[in-house]
Amino acid sequence: MSLKIYRVNMSEAKVSVEDVKEEYLALGGRGLTSQIIGDEVDPNCHPLGANNKLVIAPGLLSGTMAPSSGRLSVGTKSPLTGGIKESNAGGLAAQKLAKLGIKAIIIEGQPKEDKFYTLKVTKDGIKFEDTSSELLGKGNYEVMEKLLVEGGKKACVMSIGQAGEYKLEAASIAVSDPEGRPTRHCGRGGTGAVMGSKGIKAIVIDETDAPGVLVKDEEKFRGAARRFTKNLLNHPVCGEGLPQYGTAVLVNILNEAGGLPTKNFRTGRFDGAESISGETLAETITERKGNTAHSCHPGCVMRCSQIYNDKEGNYLTGGFEYETIWGFGANSEVDDLDAIATMDRICDDIGVDTIEMAVTIGVAMEAGIIEFGDAQGAINLLKEIGEGTPLGRMIGNGAGFTGKAYGLTRVPVVKNQGIPAYDPRAVKGQGVTYATSTMGADHTAGYAVTANILDVGGTVDPLKKEGQVELSRNLQIATAAVDSTGLCLFVAFAILDDAEALPNVVEMLNAQYGLELSVGDVTELGKSILKVERKFNEKAGFTKKDDRLPEFFKEEFAPHNVTFDISDEDLDEVYNF
Amino acid sequence: MSLKIYRVNMSEAKVSVEDVKEEYLALGGRGLTSQIIGDEVDPNCHPLGANNKLVIAPGLLSGTMAPSSGRLSVGTKSPLTGGIKESNAGGLAAQKLAKLGIKAIIIEGQPKEDKFYTLKVTKDGIKFEDTSSELLGKGNYEVMEKLLVEGGKKACVMSIGQAGEYKLEAASIAVSDPEGRPTRHCGRGGTGAVMGSKGIKAIVIDETDAPGVLVKDEEKFRGAARRFTKNLLNHPVCGEGLPQYGTAVLVNILNEAGGLPTKNFRTGRFDGAESISGETLAETITERKGNTAHSCHPGCVMRCSQIYNDKEGNYLTGGFEYETIWGFGANSEVDDLDAIATMDRICDDIGVDTIEMAVTIGVAMEAGIIEFGDAQGAINLLKEIGEGTPLGRMIGNGAGFTGKAYGLTRVPVVKNQGIPAYDPRAVKGQGVTYATSTMGADHTAGYAVTANILDVGGTVDPLKKEGQVELSRNLQIATAAVDSTGLCLFVAFAILDDAEALPNVVEMLNAQYGLELSVGDVTELGKSILKVERKFNEKAGFTKKDDRLPEFFKEEFAPHNVTFDISDEDLDEVYNF
Repeated sequence: MSLKIYRVNMSEAKVSVEDVKEEYLALGGRGLTSQIIGDEVDPNCHPLGANNKLVIAPGLLSGTMAPSSGRLSVGTKSPLTGGIKESNAGGLAAQKLAKLGIKAIIIEGQPKEDKFYTLKVTKDGIKFEDTSSELLGKGNYEVMEKLLVEGGKKACVMSIGQAGEYKLEAASIAVSDPEGRPTRHCGRGGTGAVMGSKGIKAIVIDETDAPGVLVKDEEKFRGAARRFTKNLLNHPVCGEGLPQYGTAVLVNILNEAGGLPTKNFRTGRFDGAESISGETLAETITERKGNTAHSCHPGCVMRCSQIYNDKEGNYLTGGFEYETIWGFGANSEVDDLDAIATMDRICDDIGVDTIEMAVTIGVAMEAGIIEFGDAQGAINLLKEIGEGTPLGRMIGNGAGFTGKAYGLTRVPVVKNQGIPAYDPRAVKGQGVTYATSTMGADHTAGYAVTANILDVGGTVDPLKKEGQVELSRNLQIATAAVDSTGLCLFVAFAILDDAEALPNVVEMLNAQYGLELSVGDVTELGKSILKVERKFNEKAGFTKKDDRLPEFFKEEFAPHNVTFDISDEDLDEVYNF
Repeated sequence: MSLKIYRVNMSEAKVSVEDVKEEYLALGGRGLTSQIIGDEVDPNCHPLGANNKLVIAPGLLSGTMAPSSGRLSVGTKSPLTGGIKESNAGGLAAQKLAKLGIKAIIIEGQPKEDKFYTLKVTKDGIKFEDTSSELLGKGNYEVMEKLLVEGGKKACVMSIGQAGEYKLEAASIAVSDPEGRPTRHCGRGGTGAVMGSKGIKAIVIDETDAPGVLVKDEEKFRGAARRFTKNLLNHPVCGEGLPQYGTAVLVNILNEAGGLPTKNFRTGRFDGAESISGETLAETITERKGNTAHSCHPGCVMRCSQIYNDKEGNYLTGGFEYETIWGFGANSEVDDLDAIATMDRICDDIGVDTIEMAVTIGVAMEAGIIEFGDAQGAINLLKEIGEGTPLGRMIGNGAGFTGKAYGLTRVPVVKNQGIPAYDPRAVKGQGVTYATSTMGADHTAGYAVTANILDVGGTVDPLKKEGQVELSRNLQIATAAVDSTGLCLFVAFAILDDAEALPNVVEMLNAQYGLELSVGDVTELGKSILKVERKFNEKAGFTKKDDRLPEFFKEEFAPHNVTFDISDEDLDEVYNF
């Protein structure tokens, strides 16, 4: 059975099925969502209007036995940045969509009435249901529980919380994890607001009796997959660091490096770092009988997720990432892991990006709405988002918005998207990525922490400007390609260090699709995706002036007393390919 | 005595005096403020940071006996639009500054502490005073009363209300009128927020013993001024319409033309138009013993301002313009002039642009914060701005901001500035101006209502696209020049219809400065100002994508069922000179 594209028109409440165009055949994940957005969406449309689209696509390898290949991409014109957006998440959706033979779902139009529908995706196609009365105003935890009781525990739910209903610019789309919880999110850029603007509260994906993924050369695939699994398990980050401590292992590392933004990006070291470190996190989880090495989808060997219980040993949250802990922690001067876990839980439930919210809480503290260090104040602010109060809407619209409401200049955003967890002055390769990524400030878009801090894929001094543009460029290209495969970006640690890893990925792709790709083609794919995205942004009115960090990064940053000194001319060289 | 430029550095609490550069000699008002901003301000600076500047300049003819020549220009990088801004106002400031021999005041830097100063401008220079304790948190009415009791009734006060202190993007700078009231405002684009960001609450201008304005050929000047006064008095709009009804004469005219945006730009006719018309306004004022023909500064012969008393005959507000009445009236479906006058009064006091607020109230009604027609609700919302609540800050940041907070698509802004009082679909020349003006949506920037509706300066069918680009272009050029003279833009009615008027203006300029300008030089001046402004915006990252109306203006607009159908290509031809 050949793969299909489903087109859901919300203006006419109509679903149609299309064959996959020739030129989309070798695309998946981000490559496919960005290409469809580029082909079909007017870059000047209102992101919350009928002319924007929401494209959902599993990666090329999703649904196969390739390890850690369950990433789902969502593409749209971002209400947060005004540019193109691809936001990807783990959870169960990608694998199930792939097994159902779905290459992509394109959601377009807008219902005339103010209703919220649930889409049910099964082997028989996609059906609508008006679930306004049951689900409206509910958080993701309740929505998922309800729909998974109805739809069977084996289904997957993608849903929006109240933030998406309110069309807030930091609204996420939650994707259920193996326990049916909303711990995985297409977080960045307001994809949840676009889903809300389409009148969709949830999508239930049920793979019962699905045909499964067709792999042309199963034996060749299995061999490559097995070897690639070994590549991952043998790498110290993928095989040890991540399963042991999760991404929060970075708290101590970044603090040590003087690059952990503290008190709304004032200094690079946080006195309370130890209390919120990955080591403390792992200890706490173990003590409370949670799980330090949880997989967000079956077949992930890196298992960076975790189950975090409260003091009484009851489940509190999961998918508790370094960036979340950094932002609600160091950047807000909060050193209480339980409080931070509560904030994470609230964001997952209301459906807002934890990174954007973490940056926003720092800005709200800067504005004096609450004091730095006030964990309970931060919890209250986050809860207000779900209530739709003016203050809640402000916070839920992100850091740039909150900064404007209070007339602040120390507002860490690029293209209006909050800057995450690695200070651009002390981890300069990240600064280049933040400034120039097509996505707005996005650490994953070109994760220079690798060579800047972890000595993965070489070493580039994080405090010097030399080599950062090249480092960021290469990583941005590689990332765009990896984001198309459905593989978790963390496989990049192995790919950067182990020369055998990438050829194994290429062999899996070739075996699955009957292609004859070379390693060089992967780079070309990455470049072509970035070009499509950049062209969209240019048509939407972006110029090189949008590829800049906020003015205040010219201030000196302790402990290394560094500034962001990479010139505008150098930044403009990132996309010189 | 030659004219001087005063430079006030708020970082160092220092004032210096400079001679006027050769290339600034023939510039005044907007021409000068835009040139200085273009020369001195980094287009990529944060508008509320230390690197932005606020330039205050009287027009070239201000302070002379030229009729209606008391306009004051304020220039800056706008926090509302992110581009260059010139906002001009009547009141007493321009004449007094000119008589003190001040060509411009450039305010730069930013105080380290959170203090608010008052600048005192006299013949001896500019002095600082920390008036945080007396004036902080006060509205413009109280501030002006206090400072004018201290400084003498003959002084003029420029001040910000609470909105400017909060650095809200719709914050205005109020300029006192002859009665010492804050009825005149540099309203648009958030100039008040920039003044607030500089830590300046008020500027007192005292012309006691001022040298006065030097006019090189007094006799020639007097002759030209006399003839120009006649040109104005003989024109039906300048000499009759404006003094009789004020600008509100336009309510019935636009309603008749089907171009009066009603219910957040849904239709072009308002059932309650009669109750808020200029005719009703004049009648009400007369009944209550107000003044229908008030001058905002001495020497204005058009006297479009008025004194509006409440039912008890006590002063309520003044400077009560058509655009204000339209926005709080028709666009919000409020047909109660007293309620609208109360809203105008609140905006003047808190220091927010009435046009931006009027558009914002329409958007707030669209969002369901209050119902359409709810005058008391609107009054309450406006009051909240002064209280600095989250909702107040949202409203005070304007229509674009409020629309984003509520995820709306029907948000009438260009370059994030609210679209005023003339629907771009039914008065298409205005649409071209809104889309392309360097200022964001600004009706005065190229007031095509002249030929579209009033048959002034020719006739161009408002419903057809033909001729609108040329009309708007010519008016934008002429306006930039007029805005440099200190003459009120309303003199343009006479200039457009009476071939003798412009030569008289040119003769006044020549007589005053010993120049030999021709009528053609006026056009060249206008073009060069627009080029400076446009270059600033381009450097700030604006592209032709910013020269577009919101998507929803493609919807048909009753009663003429017209859309905004001027093509992007045609819009891009406006600046082809």
